Amino acid sequence: MWAALEPIGRDPQTGGYRRYAWSAEDAALREWFTGEAVARGLDMTADRAGNQYAWWGDPDRDGPGLVLGSHLDSVPDGGAYDGPLGVVSAFAALDLLRAEGFSPARPIAVAHFGDEEGARFGVACMGSRLITGAIEPDRARALRDRDGVTLAEAMTAAGYDAASAGRDDPALRRIGTFVELHVEQGRGLADLDRPVAVGSAIWPHGRWRLDLRGEANHAGTTRLADRQDPMLDLAAAITGARTAAGAHGCVATIGKVHVEPNGVNAIPSHVTAWLDARGPQEQDVRRVVAAVAEHAGTAPVEESFTPDTRFDTALATRLAAVLDDAPVLATGAGHDAGILATAGVPTAMLFVRNPTGVSHSPAEYAEPADCLAGVTALAAVVRELAS
Amino acid sequence: MWAALEPIGRDPQTGGYRRYAWSAEDAALREWFTGEAVARGLDMTADRAGNQYAWWGDPDRDGPGLVLGSHLDSVPDGGAYDGPLGVVSAFAALDLLRAEGFSPARPIAVAHFGDEEGARFGVACMGSRLITGAIEPDRARALRDRDGVTLAEAMTAAGYDAASAGRDDPALRRIGTFVELHVEQGRGLADLDRPVAVGSAIWPHGRWRLDLRGEANHAGTTRLADRQDPMLDLAAAITGARTAAGAHGCVATIGKVHVEPNGVNAIPSHVTAWLDARGPQEQDVRRVVAAVAEHAGTAPVEESFTPDTRFDTALATRLAAVLDDAPVLATGAGHDAGILATAGVPTAMLFVRNPTGVSHSPAEYAEPADCLAGVTALAAVVRELAS
Repeated sequence: MWAALEPIGRDPQTGGYRRYAWSAEDAALREWFTGEAVARGLDMTADRAGNQYAWWGDPDRDGPGLVLGSHLDSVPDGGAYDGPLGVVSAFAALDLLRAEGFSPARPIAVAHFGDEEGARFGVACMGSRLITGAIEPDRARALRDRDGVTLAEAMTAAGYDAASAGRDDPALRRIGTFVELHVEQGRGLADLDRPVAVGSAIWPHGRWRLDLRGEANHAGTTRLADRQDPMLDLAAAITGARTAAGAHGCVATIGKVHVEPNGVNAIPSHVTAWLDARGPQEQDVRRVVAAVAEHAGTAPVEESFTPDTRFDTALATRLAAVLDDAPVLATGAGHDAGILATAGVPTAMLFVRNPTGVSHSPAEYAEPADCLAGVTALAAVVRELAS
Repeated sequence: MWAALEPIGRDPQTGGYRRYAWSAEDAALREWFTGEAVARGLDMTADRAGNQYAWWGDPDRDGPGLVLGSHLDSVPDGGAYDGPLGVVSAFAALDLLRAEGFSPARPIAVAHFGDEEGARFGVACMGSRLITGAIEPDRARALRDRDGVTLAEAMTAAGYDAASAGRDDPALRRIGTFVELHVEQGRGLADLDRPVAVGSAIWPHGRWRLDLRGEANHAGTTRLADRQDPMLDLAAAITGARTAAGAHGCVATIGKVHVEPNGVNAIPSHVTAWLDARGPQEQDVRRVVAAVAEHAGTAPVEESFTPDTRFDTALATRLAAVLDDAPVLATGAGHDAGILATAGVPTAMLFVRNPTGVSHSPAEYAEPADCLAGVTALAAVVRELAS
């Protein structure tokens, strides 16, 4: 499966992935998914956000199913595992179970949720947000990428019905339980020397936009006292974010910056910076954002915020027991599983060890033995929940 | 003349100009220049860098001429006056002199130097640098723009002979004296309440590139202690540049930044920032660069440096006397006039008052009365030097 998936959207220079929503690469990923489903004789369905499901069994006849899966898109220059590992492992777990002659007591699906990273339109988990109603469809449709293309236009150009994108109760009803396997994005398992963990919660997290305004002027002839240079506010925001995150037990990052006009000999007229802040407690995350706002001298615009998300505790405990007392870990990363859990779907996550903790980078990695342990764990979960 | 020039390369949203070397806009500007020359019966020549000259008289027969002119390209989102005012005023001064029945004692030309701002390939004054040998032609040809296009490729695509670009002694011999009129880029004349000044010198100035390396990682899951975030080095460089410039009587600017991969939820792998530093004394400029290097924790790459440039002092004194004891001012901005002066061409500059001092911005402005005073001054200079 990996061989066909690997080249799609990979930058030949960096080895990183650029798989953005509703792009040509996205279409190739959807085609790959359909191909894997058809090869296994699974039945394809799609929901009102274009998320794909490959069914073993009929959820409309036999009741809500056990859905395994993740996403296939990437951040700019992302790694090979974040997302695809969950989809590939789900197909591989079905193969393993079928080879054993396993006969499921309820329908099972592999799911592919679109636009999880939000790299193109700025809002993460768009596929799961749309079908659960966690985002207003009109707001989603109006989002624009860097070239000014709206999400509605991009979706239409990809052959999907943008007008009907939105909450999809029939699709949600088919998902009795959702289990998302994902490569770990920190060093929790590496530190514990274990290959697989069960997820307990997702930290409160959000994105804020800082609009830093200045006055464009000549870099060589404008006296320091006459300058209104928004780069100084950017510097204050960057250092302020780090200091406040350390003080409040959170993480905070300014990873995206846009400078206008971005000329060597021009004092910028405008700098836009995006703040990503997360932590175990919402009030601490809010304190970090307030501190950055004060340092930057501007009121941040909240582009998205997800409160503390708890996965189904009983389910997590049950799966940890099945998986040889796997550790139960919280994470700072958002996932479609978090959106579905918030919408009331019984949801669990499995994490596969990441030896370096590096993620959102071409250097992201998981050992083959650990990936296999992930597939075995997913198969054990299916046996537990669908026997 | 302005009416035909105004729309070329203007961004309809900001009103700023994006006139970059060897672009379609650049071709339109060259066409405009040729049209103005032909309409006046002037003889067009070009040098080995593609700089254009419109001659009244024959410098090959009658000896080196008096050359007036400036550039037509712009920084990203630049103003209407920086460059074009010098070219338009030169044509207008010839019109004024011809209307008076003035008969020049030596050839006179209006010159258009290409790629003065260096907005596309990063090196300013490329046109004058090439013909004076101030840049190695092979280095110039290999420079790349943001899309990876080399200067040689861009020049060739525009229909120019990139292979022969380089030092051009015959073209230089035709320039007996060069006088560049330019809108002032500070508030020197506004403070003195005078419309026109004569230039004395250009401060030592240069551009340095800072390569700030980090480790790409997930913004939500990487502990602060595990991060190698180059944005922190950028912040230190920005604040360090401002502090050091203030301490050493210089100006320093970080106006251009490039972030990889520039994703909201990704710690950057690499930040590139460009430092522009200038001041009355070279040793102080070097101190600022050293301070920024220390703050950023990296050795800056010098992309260009121009030492202290003195214009011809006797010529400046003579012109100031002709122009009602015009003030004589130094500037922090580089100009083709500085490159020619360094190459030994007797060179002078005239500055036209800028009421706000704002430059490299759509808000750049000069009063029509002051522009007219500039044309009148340029005509007086021609009478003084070519009678």
